[in-house]
Amino acid sequence: MEEHRKLEKSNNLIENIKRQYPKLSKSQKMIADFILSQYDKAAFMTASKLGQSVNVSESTVVRFANTLGYSGYPKLQKALQELIKTKLTTIQRMELSNNQIAQDTLIKDVFKSDIENIQATLEELNKEEFTKIVDKLYHSRRIYIIGFRTTTVLTEFLGFYLNLILDNVTVVTYGISDIFEQLINVTSEDMVIGISFPRYSSKTTEILKFIQKKGAQIITITDSELSPIIEYSDHNLIAKSNMVSFVDSLVAPLSLINALLISLGMREKEKITKTFKELENIWEQYEIYTSKENFSEQ
Amino acid sequence: MEEHRKLEKSNNLIENIKRQYPKLSKSQKMIADFILSQYDKAAFMTASKLGQSVNVSESTVVRFANTLGYSGYPKLQKALQELIKTKLTTIQRMELSNNQIAQDTLIKDVFKSDIENIQATLEELNKEEFTKIVDKLYHSRRIYIIGFRTTTVLTEFLGFYLNLILDNVTVVTYGISDIFEQLINVTSEDMVIGISFPRYSSKTTEILKFIQKKGAQIITITDSELSPIIEYSDHNLIAKSNMVSFVDSLVAPLSLINALLISLGMREKEKITKTFKELENIWEQYEIYTSKENFSEQ
Amino acid sequence: MEEHRKLEKSNNLIENIKRQYPKLSKSQKMIADFILSQYDKAAFMTASKLGQSVNVSESTVVRFANTLGYSGYPKLQKALQELIKTKLTTIQRMELSNNQIAQDTLIKDVFKSDIENIQATLEELNKEEFTKIVDKLYHSRRIYIIGFRTTTVLTEFLGFYLNLILDNVTVVTYGISDIFEQLINVTSEDMVIGISFPRYSSKTTEILKFIQKKGAQIITITDSELSPIIEYSDHNLIAKSNMVSFVDSLVAPLSLINALLISLGMREKEKITKTFKELENIWEQYEIYTSKENFSEQ
Amino acid sequence: MEEHRKLEKSNNLIENIKRQYPKLSKSQKMIADFILSQYDKAAFMTASKLGQSVNVSESTVVRFANTLGYSGYPKLQKALQELIKTKLTTIQRMELSNNQIAQDTLIKDVFKSDIENIQATLEELNKEEFTKIVDKLYHSRRIYIIGFRTTTVLTEFLGFYLNLILDNVTVVTYGISDIFEQLINVTSEDMVIGISFPRYSSKTTEILKFIQKKGAQIITITDSELSPIIEYSDHNLIAKSNMVSFVDSLVAPLSLINALLISLGMREKEKITKTFKELENIWEQYEIYTSKENFSEQ
Repeated sequence: MEEHRKLEKSNNLIENIKRQYPKLSKSQKMIADFILSQYDKAAFMTASKLGQSVNVSESTVVRFANTLGYSGYPKLQKALQELIKTKLTTIQRMELSNNQIAQDTLIKDVFKSDIENIQATLEELNKEEFTKIVDKLYHSRRIYIIGFRTTTVLTEFLGFYLNLILDNVTVVTYGISDIFEQLINVTSEDMVIGISFPRYSSKTTEILKFIQKKGAQIITITDSELSPIIEYSDHNLIAKSNMVSFVDSLVAPLSLINALLISLGMREKEKITKTFKELENIWEQYEIYTSKENFSEQ
Repeated sequence: MEEHRKLEKSNNLIENIKRQYPKLSKSQKMIADFILSQYDKAAFMTASKLGQSVNVSESTVVRFANTLGYSGYPKLQKALQELIKTKLTTIQRMELSNNQIAQDTLIKDVFKSDIENIQATLEELNKEEFTKIVDKLYHSRRIYIIGFRTTTVLTEFLGFYLNLILDNVTVVTYGISDIFEQLINVTSEDMVIGISFPRYSSKTTEILKFIQKKGAQIITITDSELSPIIEYSDHNLIAKSNMVSFVDSLVAPLSLINALLISLGMREKEKITKTFKELENIWEQYEIYTSKENFSEQ
Repeated sequence: MEEHRKLEKSNNLIENIKRQYPKLSKSQKMIADFILSQYDKAAFMTASKLGQSVNVSESTVVRFANTLGYSGYPKLQKALQELIKTKLTTIQRMELSNNQIAQDTLIKDVFKSDIENIQATLEELNKEEFTKIVDKLYHSRRIYIIGFRTTTVLTEFLGFYLNLILDNVTVVTYGISDIFEQLINVTSEDMVIGISFPRYSSKTTEILKFIQKKGAQIITITDSELSPIIEYSDHNLIAKSNMVSFVDSLVAPLSLINALLISLGMREKEKITKTFKELENIWEQYEIYTSKENFSEQ
Repeated sequence: MEEHRKLEKSNNLIENIKRQYPKLSKSQKMIADFILSQYDKAAFMTASKLGQSVNVSESTVVRFANTLGYSGYPKLQKALQELIKTKLTTIQRMELSNNQIAQDTLIKDVFKSDIENIQATLEELNKEEFTKIVDKLYHSRRIYIIGFRTTTVLTEFLGFYLNLILDNVTVVTYGISDIFEQLINVTSEDMVIGISFPRYSSKTTEILKFIQKKGAQIITITDSELSPIIEYSDHNLIAKSNMVSFVDSLVAPLSLINALLISLGMREKEKITKTFKELENIWEQYEIYTSKENFSEQ
């Protein structure tokens, strides 16, 4: 795990292969060449199959993984898959899913994949980081939330509830103002939550770079240590987002945000109860929700 | 199941109790009185406990359920719980969750609850209805998507992908135009997707009533047969949304929408592949996503 | 002028007529009856024509105006027209404009009407009120801007520039949050700018009523003392909006907002210059605007 | 006028000067040098003053203007001013306005400047082009409206009313979808209205370039023939936008849009009357506007 983290931090499997290339044996170079040119395929091969493809033994493949710093082939394969996943175009993703998912079990597989994403998110959750983030959110002067494309679904949901709990939260979106204009007054006392999932919006990365220069603390919510926003992160939460075909799966990230919101809310139970009491009155008076009254009339 | 569906269609457990009240025995009337006045409590009692509360036997409670048309007490209890769930205020929900969820296992419980929601959604999914809906979406002149409050998260996500597949989709949102203005030209050849989860927005119900008069087909996505939008529904999909504390859980609904989108996309694989090819070019040219090129430069 | 203002403050010509009705002569009662039942027509009649319609002399009509407290018939007529204007439906407005505006001079008349609106706005501008408002805006903790329907054009424009000058401004719009939710933390140290022009959105009035109870100062920008939001106003600016046919004319209100923004900006010239210097760097770096550089390349 | 248009079409005064430079006399070269290096100043000098600055006679300056193809010095000066205006940064504009506008007459000057903008817009309006545009808008399959930054105020207003008249209008804005995604299905049967005023958004220009390749007709609304979007324009309308200090003045453009909407509406009077009748019913039922009923209760 530790070694893997380190590798990921160095951020780039391909770069690692290139760096070690001169030192590799002839057989290992053949493996390296195959991976560099066809990593899309390699990522889904067993050690044995990969060996066959370049006419080397399975154990040579395993040693190749060790040489790169992985404890075994599965670790190398996982790194390849993470890498590939984030780089695939939407069309490549569609083709991948077609080979894997048969038409008749399609629906079932989508739900199961989302369940697995949540389970993996829970298992790998860094609870200390989670607690630190909850703490920090309470002590920020202002909180800004940033995310584009489909992740706006997450930023809007998080922002809506966070504002009910904390009342100093801005979800930064395009409008008459440009994104940067809305962020020129960010200071080091502020907190910025950046959310990015594959296919990573380049705008989010660009803005977090701008924010980092401003000195604000950055919390990232993303899908792996290989995510392009990791390098701007002070604190990070991982939620799995193995996509199903052409759709970005944001189910596990949404579940993680549920957990974050409820943890925050439970800490400030009294304040939040007071807020909701006032809101209930407003909701009732202005008939925002269908109500008990409607019900008892029946 | 069939009987339960019928009861739910008659839409109202309380109404049912009131209607049968004159015919009930003295003991049964005591049970009915207790339920009518304290249904919040009753919904979470066993048959035995409910019997104790009003000094009648467990078997009297079971016969009471039968008299109302349920095959057993569990069915009655489930109806009560569904009813109650949709009527609870946010504060009542917070209190409920506090009794159930201990602080230290809070995070875990949120994720588990979301997994259970997805599992239950998959188990109870009406696959024929699902297939019919996919068919109908292909043959609509125009598709409008409606939902307010937190469900905008779902309408925006669904609308975004649906537009890439079908190109005739409008997510109806507030702006300079009122909602109704955007819907005056809806015809019977159009399809309206209405999404509503607890706490049900009264606006969504009001608008679907307006749409029904216009003669458009209505697809609803909601959490139970007791939902207020069911009465305007031509086709319906259920996704579980047992809320965690004060947060509306939209995780299972989002997973259902993933399944719907992928089923649609797979049918029009060729068209969608063509669209994505054009989009890939645009995304690359205007650097919408972080790209392979960025990666290989490293 | 003074008397007119007073009458307008009593807010209602019709109410005034009804109150004085018992004291009126028989002839005057005939005039009153005609106005009450057909004020749409009466508003566009000369004193002589109005007299003819009810078989009384022109001078009786003039004395009737005096009895109501107007210095002459033109003042009464103007009050009637203001009243009527705000109550006309869009269809009535279209019909009105068709009778008045010949097709061939239509374009010219639209521009001229907008020029007259600006001129009248300038002439009738209350400069003391204007200066007080500029002062108060500087000393507010937070500023909220409210307006719906076509006036969102004004709220967005005002909010965009105000935020560059003051950085504590929120334009309240529909989204995942309801309007009221965004305003629950408004205090008496805050300032709310409410903008409403015919056809007056009932939502704006409803919300200002809510705000008044919260104790915040309210600045209104509207088209006359008869506007429904006047009763919630602590400070008010009038901009003329005599509509052209079915389109709400917001040209003079936009010009008034220009004046307000520039007056504010000039007071904080140093601060604003600093902000714009930072923005220029951002705009240049991220190529927000077409630039001198592009130009000199040619 | 004709010659001026031609020069503007060649799109660039500076370029023109550079091209003619080799043929110029020594005195004329001195004028040319001064203009090229200090056009900010030159644009506001009389012929006499400009002559003094480089030690040549006033008549030499006039002949210089003639050599460039202008009928006199005023035409050259105007071209310089138009050029300069569009290239100034916001800070330069603030400084300009401070020298010109004294504090005590500031408000008055803002209103007067807006009136002048409307008058100039009316005087220079190309009525044939205006009529052609009205025609073409009726015969488009779909209409898209594009504009960013402060011009969204214009696009939203235009789009709102145009949709009530024509029902096939999309105002393209940022959201979960990128701008380009919303435009991939644009065809040569569609019409795109591009709106851009100083400081010109580079995004608008970029998108019109994309649209032109798609083959759709482009109508531009901008402030001069020197605007960067002119080169993508099939039909163009000019509205003056001489800015007041740091604020983009959109008053005359808004008045032009009023004229465009009313001209369109009058042509389809019957259809539009029918639409508004239906809307009146909706507005009344759902209490969108403050109503006559409220009024008569008083």
